[in-house]
Amino acid sequence: MLKQPPLVREGDLSLMVDLYELAMAQAYWAEGMDDTAVFSLFFRALPDNRNFVLACGQRSVVSIIESLRFTDEHIERLASLDRFRPEFLDWLRGFRFSGSVYAVPEGTPLFPQEPLLEIEGPIAEVQLLESLVMNYVHLESVLASKAVRLTFAAQGRPVVDFGLRRTHGLDAAHRAVRAYRLAGLTGTSNILAGLDFNMPVYGTMAHSFVQACKDEQAAFRVYADLYPGTTLLVDTYDTRTAVRAIIAWLKSNPEVSIGGIRLDSGDLAAEATDCRTMLDEAGLTDIKIMASGGLDEYGIAELLSSAAPIDGFGVGSAIGVSNDAPALELAFKLTEYGSLPRMKNSPGKQSFPGPKQIYRRLGPDGEIVQDVVSGRDEVYDGTPLLKPVMKQGRIIEGAIEPLDDQVRNASEAIASLPERFRSLAPISKVPVEISDFLKALQRDTLEKIRSA
Amino acid sequence: MLKQPPLVREGDLSLMVDLYELAMAQAYWAEGMDDTAVFSLFFRALPDNRNFVLACGQRSVVSIIESLRFTDEHIERLASLDRFRPEFLDWLRGFRFSGSVYAVPEGTPLFPQEPLLEIEGPIAEVQLLESLVMNYVHLESVLASKAVRLTFAAQGRPVVDFGLRRTHGLDAAHRAVRAYRLAGLTGTSNILAGLDFNMPVYGTMAHSFVQACKDEQAAFRVYADLYPGTTLLVDTYDTRTAVRAIIAWLKSNPEVSIGGIRLDSGDLAAEATDCRTMLDEAGLTDIKIMASGGLDEYGIAELLSSAAPIDGFGVGSAIGVSNDAPALELAFKLTEYGSLPRMKNSPGKQSFPGPKQIYRRLGPDGEIVQDVVSGRDEVYDGTPLLKPVMKQGRIIEGAIEPLDDQVRNASEAIASLPERFRSLAPISKVPVEISDFLKALQRDTLEKIRSA
Repeated sequence: MLKQPPLVREGDLSLMVDLYELAMAQAYWAEGMDDTAVFSLFFRALPDNRNFVLACGQRSVVSIIESLRFTDEHIERLASLDRFRPEFLDWLRGFRFSGSVYAVPEGTPLFPQEPLLEIEGPIAEVQLLESLVMNYVHLESVLASKAVRLTFAAQGRPVVDFGLRRTHGLDAAHRAVRAYRLAGLTGTSNILAGLDFNMPVYGTMAHSFVQACKDEQAAFRVYADLYPGTTLLVDTYDTRTAVRAIIAWLKSNPEVSIGGIRLDSGDLAAEATDCRTMLDEAGLTDIKIMASGGLDEYGIAELLSSAAPIDGFGVGSAIGVSNDAPALELAFKLTEYGSLPRMKNSPGKQSFPGPKQIYRRLGPDGEIVQDVVSGRDEVYDGTPLLKPVMKQGRIIEGAIEPLDDQVRNASEAIASLPERFRSLAPISKVPVEISDFLKALQRDTLEKIRSA
Repeated sequence: MLKQPPLVREGDLSLMVDLYELAMAQAYWAEGMDDTAVFSLFFRALPDNRNFVLACGQRSVVSIIESLRFTDEHIERLASLDRFRPEFLDWLRGFRFSGSVYAVPEGTPLFPQEPLLEIEGPIAEVQLLESLVMNYVHLESVLASKAVRLTFAAQGRPVVDFGLRRTHGLDAAHRAVRAYRLAGLTGTSNILAGLDFNMPVYGTMAHSFVQACKDEQAAFRVYADLYPGTTLLVDTYDTRTAVRAIIAWLKSNPEVSIGGIRLDSGDLAAEATDCRTMLDEAGLTDIKIMASGGLDEYGIAELLSSAAPIDGFGVGSAIGVSNDAPALELAFKLTEYGSLPRMKNSPGKQSFPGPKQIYRRLGPDGEIVQDVVSGRDEVYDGTPLLKPVMKQGRIIEGAIEPLDDQVRNASEAIASLPERFRSLAPISKVPVEISDFLKALQRDTLEKIRSA
């Protein structure tokens, strides 16, 4: 056993594979099965509390696919498992993904049966990518699909990510911020991720700072000196007492600049209302009130429906782990091999065979009217969402937009959702139609399976 | 903006920090506040579906703490935020953690108010570690606390991790396996993690392999040739048809070695019962039946209570994201600064001040009778659980056991849980007592806060 590594290294991602994928790859290799396969990444149903999936990660994952290699060290480690033939390990040593990837734009709202991406290539090569690609896309899509709901609930007020301490590990904490940008959050507390993904970083003080100082007022004074315009955390001991003291202090020290206060516990609506009244009566109408502490989209919606005077929200656990739907049942299914349609017949898990396209038709007001999931070569009205981003194992030049452009496109795509999908209440019906061609292909393929 | 990095690098973990931690550190530095602080990592309450937290990661995190540094590149990036003074950035450049860490053994079942770890050192240094340490320990503790329930439900039958595709990112997929070993799972499908953490790797075939082959029987024959003793996935088209065909094939080819079949959909209890009957009637009593597909501890318990003849389980989403409790409300709180007890008074968030110890008293049969949470210097009957693992910023030689030893200790610690904690039903009462000293310290500290 090696020294336990604290983090997965980029160069080791080729081993981030389920054993069955390598076992199948060896079997394909042993049988000389190297025809072209098409695999599709999609979901059969939405979680109860989601009206769509905000698909994220499906384009950026190609940079991992492009650079996947098995080094001598990897080969040695695989050999130690005593399951692989030397000739197959040689094949792995020469592995470079040589196929194609089609993917919807980053930050596209999708519905059941709509592929996030499709990968096409020699079957063993695509099979090897299964779990890695699923893991990569699942993370960002889960977190973005949750975070976008917070922005709906906040009705334009800023929502800031405080989730670093709760996300599942450090890769999640980091790429969460990419997903949150696509979902429309305002900022993050996480410095590395904020810098890497060009998102504003926010944060002022924790209770520990107030507790460590001589008293609360001393803590506030230090911050006002160091960070003019700062936001003061007022609930360490007693919120109303703290706010009264701030008002008295600011009245006798008009040069002091405080931008806001943050409430992190208790009855946030009542406290915000009281604090707002106190601040306004003192003429401090510019001081904003921020709220945090166990908030999710339902909590935010309730606060705002009770007209709580809150100007912005910090959210941790709820978006950090997507607490009410931490997993999406993404499936990565073989849909074609050797130019023949493929599907399985497992109860409740039937899928549509063949490579696909999604056509999205918008109405005159820019709202989604109808999606058609069709065969890849069919032509329907609307915008085709799946576009080639990788060909012969290389990223297509210009196919992956810079993140700032992706964020702009995602914002438009989210805005194209009809109101019922932006509501927190579950929808009863999605605007997805399966093309006649795909339905017939499914019927024919099922008949062939059953008569086999 | 840098090129978007696909993974967090170990060398960049010093920037994996919430902005408020660096803001507070600068404030401590500016005020010359460099007394010793004690921070405690604990939880106030259990999630509804957990009877204890299996604390994991709290010892291994010290290797990250020990190596945390701010490089010139980090300093430059921080300077770009326009919030830090050059002298403070110089202080960061010289940062080496110089304090102490006390932690319970890896894989210790804990109850509310019991610290997983305590960190002691100059306040700014400890404050900087907050989110990084919380993230690191939270991940493994969340996943282990779920996984251990699966082992309870499976009553000694093997449970294998199939979660790579669902865990939140790649760090989670990797360290999950460390947590699962501590929780008592049998194996993993994840090759890199299995190799890194010395856990057996399992896996045979997906539906795609069956679909890609000429027909199901061809797929099975390839696997039997390549992998004698393999487990065949039988639900791609029709389970009973597949099993009938396997039986006919094995009868006329007694040299073929098949170890098991796997059911991945449908009514698992009914299918397992039918398959077992068919196999047994054919004299194939040695062929095991494995089940997978959306299983959690409740599903496993139900299958076994209906006497479904299932020999082992593969579990993905449920343990991969801890679906019913994906977050623990871990808190990292200042409990002492400058030798004075500290606490906050926020509604519902009062804690006990001062550095602590946990004494665990076992009965004659090795079962937990009582835990006492005391001041660190108090002496009670029982085994003290918090032990120093880092001193003056260096890992104490021999304090972190090799993983195999940790797994053995964890297994004993889990076995010491009285039956009611091993049940899937929620408990009403935890065996934790707070020492009189701590209660008095809380009372006195609260009085001082209120009279301030």
